[in-house]
Order: sequence, then C-alpha cells, then structure tokens
Amino acid sequence: MAKEISPSVRCIKPLQYTALAVRAKQITQELAQGVQKPYSELIQLIWGDPQNAGIQPLTFVRQVLAACLYPQLLNNDGLPADVRQRAQGLLEECKGGSLGSYTDLPGIPQVARQISEFITRRDEGVPSDPRNILISPGSQWALQNILSLLVHGGERAGRSGVLTPVPGHCTSIMSLVSVGGVSVPYQLSEEQGWQLRLEELNRALDAAKQVCRPVALYIINPGNPSGHVQSRESIQDVIRFASENRLFLLADEVYQDTIYTESKRFLSYKRVLAEMGPPFSDTVELASFHSASKGLLGECGFRAGYVELVNIDPAVKKHIYTIFSKDNAPTPGQIALSVMASPPVTGEASYDFYREETQQLHSLIKENVRRVHEVLNSLPGVCSQPVEGGAFAFPRLYLPPKAIDKAKELGLEPDTFYCLRLLETAGVFVSPGCEYEQKDGTYHIRFCIMAKRDTVEDLLTRLATFQTQFMNKFS
Amino acid sequence: MAKEISPSVRCIKPLQYTALAVRAKQITQELAQGVQKPYSELIQLIWGDPQNAGIQPLTFVRQVLAACLYPQLLNNDGLPADVRQRAQGLLEECKGGSLGSYTDLPGIPQVARQISEFITRRDEGVPSDPRNILISPGSQWALQNILSLLVHGGERAGRSGVLTPVPGHCTSIMSLVSVGGVSVPYQLSEEQGWQLRLEELNRALDAAKQVCRPVALYIINPGNPSGHVQSRESIQDVIRFASENRLFLLADEVYQDTIYTESKRFLSYKRVLAEMGPPFSDTVELASFHSASKGLLGECGFRAGYVELVNIDPAVKKHIYTIFSKDNAPTPGQIALSVMASPPVTGEASYDFYREETQQLHSLIKENVRRVHEVLNSLPGVCSQPVEGGAFAFPRLYLPPKAIDKAKELGLEPDTFYCLRLLETAGVFVSPGCEYEQKDGTYHIRFCIMAKRDTVEDLLTRLATFQTQFMNKFS
Ligand SMILES: Cc1ncc(COP(=O)(O)O)c(C=O)c1O
Ligand SMILES: Cc1ncc(COP(=O)(O)O)c(C=O)c1O
Repeated sequence: MAKEISPSVRCIKPLQYTALAVRAKQITQELAQGVQKPYSELIQLIWGDPQNAGIQPLTFVRQVLAACLYPQLLNNDGLPADVRQRAQGLLEECKGGSLGSYTDLPGIPQVARQISEFITRRDEGVPSDPRNILISPGSQWALQNILSLLVHGGERAGRSGVLTPVPGHCTSIMSLVSVGGVSVPYQLSEEQGWQLRLEELNRALDAAKQVCRPVALYIINPGNPSGHVQSRESIQDVIRFASENRLFLLADEVYQDTIYTESKRFLSYKRVLAEMGPPFSDTVELASFHSASKGLLGECGFRAGYVELVNIDPAVKKHIYTIFSKDNAPTPGQIALSVMASPPVTGEASYDFYREETQQLHSLIKENVRRVHEVLNSLPGVCSQPVEGGAFAFPRLYLPPKAIDKAKELGLEPDTFYCLRLLETAGVFVSPGCEYEQKDGTYHIRFCIMAKRDTVEDLLTRLATFQTQFMNKFS
Repeated sequence: MAKEISPSVRCIKPLQYTALAVRAKQITQELAQGVQKPYSELIQLIWGDPQNAGIQPLTFVRQVLAACLYPQLLNNDGLPADVRQRAQGLLEECKGGSLGSYTDLPGIPQVARQISEFITRRDEGVPSDPRNILISPGSQWALQNILSLLVHGGERAGRSGVLTPVPGHCTSIMSLVSVGGVSVPYQLSEEQGWQLRLEELNRALDAAKQVCRPVALYIINPGNPSGHVQSRESIQDVIRFASENRLFLLADEVYQDTIYTESKRFLSYKRVLAEMGPPFSDTVELASFHSASKGLLGECGFRAGYVELVNIDPAVKKHIYTIFSKDNAPTPGQIALSVMASPPVTGEASYDFYREETQQLHSLIKENVRRVHEVLNSLPGVCSQPVEGGAFAFPRLYLPPKAIDKAKELGLEPDTFYCLRLLETAGVFVSPGCEYEQKDGTYHIRFCIMAKRDTVEDLLTRLATFQTQFMNKFS
C-alpha cells in the first residue's frame, strides 16, 4: 500500500544536493578522525545561508529578539534603550503579551503595518495596505500556498501550468510539482547577462499550450541563481505579456536588498505596475514575495516571509485567507521582519552601529562579487556573467568531452560529476547547475557569495587549482 | 481567470471562527472607546493557546532561547550556569554556530537525538532512532505533508480517503482537503466519554468505500476537542483495524503531556504497537506527531513539531525526506523542543525552579478541569463529559427548539448563534461545536482550560448567568 504514493509527490525531483551532502558529511568525519587530505576543512557554500558561511547576524535583530523572548531583559541596562522600547512595543501587540501565542493573520499587527510602510517607502509612494500583506512561515510557504490555489490537478492537458525561469530556484519547482502543477520552463539568456527575453516567454507559452493550461508566470528578480537584475523596460514587457495572456504574476523578490552594481537598482513589480497606469495597474494580478532569510538580514533559520497581494479579487482573497489561516508565521521570524522593515533611525541609540554593520556587510559582499568575477573569468573553461544582485555566482563551465563521457559512464550529470570531484579533491562543496535546470548541453556551478572574505578567497584559490588540473586531466 | 481557483482549495470550509472574531474585535474596540457593556473585558478562550490566556512561559525555555539568539548572554552571570551550558551545546550543533542558519533534516542533530531519547523513556524502552524523526515547522505542517504523500486526487471514487474523528481538529480536515483528500468521518461516542468504538470504525469504512479509496486513519489522542484519553485496549483495537484494512495510521499525540485523571496515563501508539509484537509490530505503518505548541510548554508562536515514522518502507521514506526538505523547522522552536524532550535534571541549577513551574501549571489546569466539570454539569441544558486530557472542555448544549429556530432564521448554525449571543451579552469568546464537526442534532461549545484560575472562574460565572437567561428566553 505504502508504495502507492501520490503521483505529484513522486514527480518531485530529489535534489542532486543529497548525494553530494552524504559525501560531504563523510569527508567532515574523515577530517575529524585525522584522515590526511589536501585540505584541512571543507568550504560549504551550497545555500544562500550567510550565517552558515560565517557572517554574523545583525546585532540589533538579535537584541530585540532576546528581549522579546525573555522579557526580564527589558529592565537590563546592558541592552540599548531603543532595543528595549522596540521589544516592549512589539510584545504589546502580541496576544497575551507573549511571543508564545499564535498570531492571527496577517501576523503581529505592528509588523504588518511596518512592512506596508517599508513597501511604500521602497516604491517611492505607491501605496501599500497592511490588509494586503500576509506574513507566513517563510516566503516559500507563501508561494506554495498561492500555487495550491492557482493550480488544478486532473487530466493531462487540463492541468495548470506555471512559467518558470531556467535557471531558477529548485525549491519553487518542488512546490509547484507537489501541488500538482506543471512547470513550463522559459530560458534566461546567459549571453545577455541572463536577461529575460519576451520572444522566449512567447515561445514557452506556445509550447506549453500543448501540454497544460498556463495560469501563472513566476519570476525571480534579482535572479537566483542568475544574479541578473531586471530593468524597468524588462519588467514592463513581462507585465504586458501577463496581461495579454491573463497570467497571474508571481514575483519572487526576496533578493531585493542585495544589489551590487551601481548601474542598477531594484524596482518592484508592484511599483512598475502602478506606474504603468490603467489598464495594467488595476487588472494584472500580482503576488510579491519577500523574506527575512535573504538580504542583509539573512535569518534563514527563523522561517518568516510575507506576500503582498495586488489586484486580487475579494472572493479569491477570501480563499487565500482561509488557506493561510491553516498556519502562522513563527513569531521570532516576525520580529526579524519587523527590524528589516523598520530599522533603527537617526537619533536612536542603535542607529550608528546598525548602519555600520549593514554597510560593512554590503561592502564585504561587493568586494566578494568583484573578486569572484575577476577570478572566475580568468580561469580556463569558465565564464561568469556579472553578478548584479542576489546571493550567488553561477559561472558556466565548458567541460571537455572526455569529462562529459566520464560522467555519463558513472551515471552522473556532468556538472554533478564536476562538483563531486571538486568536493573530493579540493574540499569545496558547491552545487551543480543541473539542480536549477539549465539549457541543454550547458553546465554550471552555483555558490553563495555572502561569506567571509577569506572563505571566498580560499574557495577561489582551491577552485582555480582544481579547474586547471581538471581541464588538463580531461583534455 | 482568478475565480477559477483550485477545487481542493475551494472545498476548504472557512472557519466559523471568522465571523465571531470580527465581532470580538469590534467589541474590543467598543470597550476601548468606553462603550458601556455588562462586562469590562472580553474573555477569549478560543484556541489551545495558554500564553494568550495569561499562562507564563517556562522560564528555562526562554532563558536558553535568549542565550542562543544573543550569544553575548553566554557570559552573563544573570543566567544560570546550566542555561548557558545548554545554549552553548545547542549552538555548537547549529551550522555556522548560529540559529540564523538553515538546518538540514531531521533538524538540529542534538535536538533529534534528545527527542529520540525522550520517546524511548516515554515508551519505557521501546527503541527510537533519530533517523526516523523529522522536525518540522509545527506538527500540522508535518501532518499535511504526510497527507500530501498518501493522498491521490483525481476521479471521484478513486480519490483517497482518510478516516477522521468527529468531533476533531478542524485544521487537520483543512489540511486533508487542501491536498485533495476526502474526509471520512467516524463518530466518537459522547455518552461513553467520547470513546472510539470499533463498530463505528467499521461502519465508517464501509460507508467510505462508496465514495473514495480509504488509505489512512487519523486519531487524536488525547482528544481535541473531546478530552478523551484512549486505553490500551482501545489502541489495540485501532491497530488491528488498521492492519486488517491496510490503513496508514496517523497518530496525533500532541496532547500527550497533559492528562488530568489519576486513572489514565498516556500510552503512545508506537509503544502499544511494539508491545503487540508481530505481525503488527513490524507491518503497521505509523506516523506519530508531537509539538512544542502543546502540553506544558505551550509555545504555539514558535511553530515547531516533529513526526516519528514507524515501519515505513525505505522507498517511501525517501519521498518523505524529499517533501520535508522543501522547508525547515524554525530554529527557535527547535530549541523549545529540545527543552521539552530534555528538561533540566536533578543537580542542574535550573532543576528545582523548572519542576516548581511545571508542577504548579499542572495543578492549576487540574483544578481548572475540576471546576469546569463541576460548574458545567450544574447548569440547566449543559452536559460535559470528563476532561481526561488535552486542552479543552467540549460540553454539550441541549438547545431549546425556539433557539434552534431562531438560529435557522438568521442562517446560522445553532451553536454559532449561541456563541455569538454569549460573546455579545457576556463577553465570552468561545467556539461552536460545528467548527469541529459533531453528530447531527447535537450542539456544543469548546473552550481552552489552560488559562489563569481567575479567568476560568470568571468565564464560568458569566457562562452560568448567560445560560440561565438563554434557556429562559427561548423556552
Ligand atoms: C528565489 C528564492 N525564493 C525563496 C527562497 C526561500 O525563502 P524563505 O526562506 O523565505 O522560504 C529562496 C531561498 O533560497 C530563494 O532563493
Ligand atoms: C490535535 C492537534 N494537532 C495539531 C495541532 C497543531 O499543532 P502545531 O502547532 O504543532 O502545528 C493542534 C493545535 O491545536 C491540535 O489540536
């Protein structure tokens, strides 16, 4: 009986990561047991998880949280006055004055208001209403639950399809497939710095119509793993395309705070939509996602994000509320979102230090990005597009035919083979491009650029040596 | 387009709670504006949310959490030595030494080990393997994701069914329906103190076979809202029934720590299954759920629970791992689970105080339960079965025909009508039995018994007055 598991669950592609992780764990154990290797420690930059990569959390976030969780600290002079005041204010809006209580939708009321004010500032005045914001246990949870509403299972060609970027965030595809939806891939143009091209959206949509009924378009901006940041014109193209084809827009904007190029800035789908005016601004349905896991906050462990709903029919909104009311966002994560949306301001005790920490972090990552770009593009058989934003480098590998043959012989994807070798011989744990989908015949690796400077330098040195050896061996 | 939402989402019954909550919010605002009412404050005991009802969190949990989140406190003499030591140990097992990092399955390794040791102690030696434990963002999340694996959507009679208790936990039904499953109700016997009877399981299963393909049996023990605690014999009956009918057992055991009668103790499905021996002990598939939200811990806001898997085929387990790897349990909640599974022991600095707090809390709830039972059963038209465990009283209301007519006139369920009146005239916010399903023609209310003593006394006084007036008015 147990083997008759749901087809939608069976269709979820297990992560390539798993095989690599098993080996990484063994290597860590071997190193601990004193087994001799060409390296004394693994470098793990698999996920967009800055704290795992040695980045310190922002002090203010943790101080506020500690005071909220253990209110005896509210009387502790060791914590700055604004920390205690902030914690006090947040606790007053929690039921029973405690983070231990469930929160009603949209979340702690003050946090929803702060998020809505944050959005209004970000979008230079485009209004945001806290009633359109739903705080959730991570942005991925919110995305999956909106997908479960948009997607009909059922017969082959009647199944709902969602256009998804290639390369893209693999967990989003898992979420889509697990609710019974069909992923309709559209390719980003690597040679144009991973731009999203309108012709490709049209091609993907036409192709999709043979196998499913496309209902939504999923975009990641800034891109994961692409690192591309969309221009206003590109966003406008997408909005017009969604409007013409009556597609629901799912804008995954979790990397909005991390942009590294002077020539680009983050423009939200909501803002561009509003600024396009009617008929777009009052008809195109949009859900925009953000998270406490990403950006300079980087609190992945807390599991909190939110979605803002734009132009959603009240009848549909009611169903969204019902489905979101099945669960609550963890309160500690909601506190992190509160700080993200409403950081200390001039005059507050924590302002200077918060600014210093965030600026240092931003400069650190910018320097990482510069070095990564420089080194990767100096290596034989490697080509990296500019990392304009987000948390990852995603360089292309031009693998020699002999390496590809060897991988196939072993039953591995060529870039998984590459990653296993890199792990084994250089102690560098990164993930293969096939995890994120990629154009046939192209190969990539992905690694997180939010890490300590010396970790990144060490990774680049090991990678450079490995790449040269690898190319020699297989050419 | 947007109105064509997924049928499984459309089938989710919105909570009765919503209408009541809207009015409760208005009343709170009216009271704040100085509007005169027969009460100066609302009593809200809708959810099993002790901290919302004025119960203080356990100090040790919050101290460990504060130290984990703000490690500067590790050097603070204000915190007991064992708190700091515990926090240090937990942080060492977090990636990057921080609660801000993602955790791999099954969760923070030390926490999974502690849970597995806790289960072994609880089950008096029946072994537990940490590899069968998956920590999740709440037990409800774990249940929904296991359901998504067991349930096939599709054509009418081919759809998967799950036997679910009446009355039962409404969110579980929402989860089941949202993944496309059919809920197959089985009635608990109110007159026998809400016992689960084998004949009724057989009846329900036969009836179900007309409309779906039953694949699993969901039990809540101790019951929500029933308050019943199953005996060993009853559990054995259920296990035999599941075995004969090849049903997957879903044992929701989140109330295992809260039992108020001397004559009963908690026996886990896993333990009874193991003690039954073969063929049951090595064939019946079981998932058992527990949570940091419930019991004496009561940390609902943190969103952490776990599932233990028993007798699951390795091939199926792999899919469960894949589906669980879509998300992580929030780390703060994992810390709470750690304390639940491994509280301070004799000799540790925090032991005495932890014991004092938990014993006081347990006595408080026991006294609440005694008083609730005494008062409810003294009221005209009210009959409450013994509350043996869990977090709720669920008394039956014998509503006069005139009240039922009046409710129907207003388009309301009779007990929703009752709850609205109770809210309006007595300022008591509890939930109607129809929220949890109930036998046709019977009516109930549910309220949480984990609350401060004077809150419960106040509720009982208001309810007594209201009930007498209500019966007079409608008889
Ligand atoms: C594009 C994208 N969206 C969503 C997420 C997940 O965010 P959360 O932690 O809020 O669920 C990630 C995490 O890596 C991501 O890269
Ligand atoms: C029977 C039952 N199961 C599960 C839950 C939810 O637990 P969690 O908070 O761990 O999701 C509840 C909460 O009320 C419950 O009553």
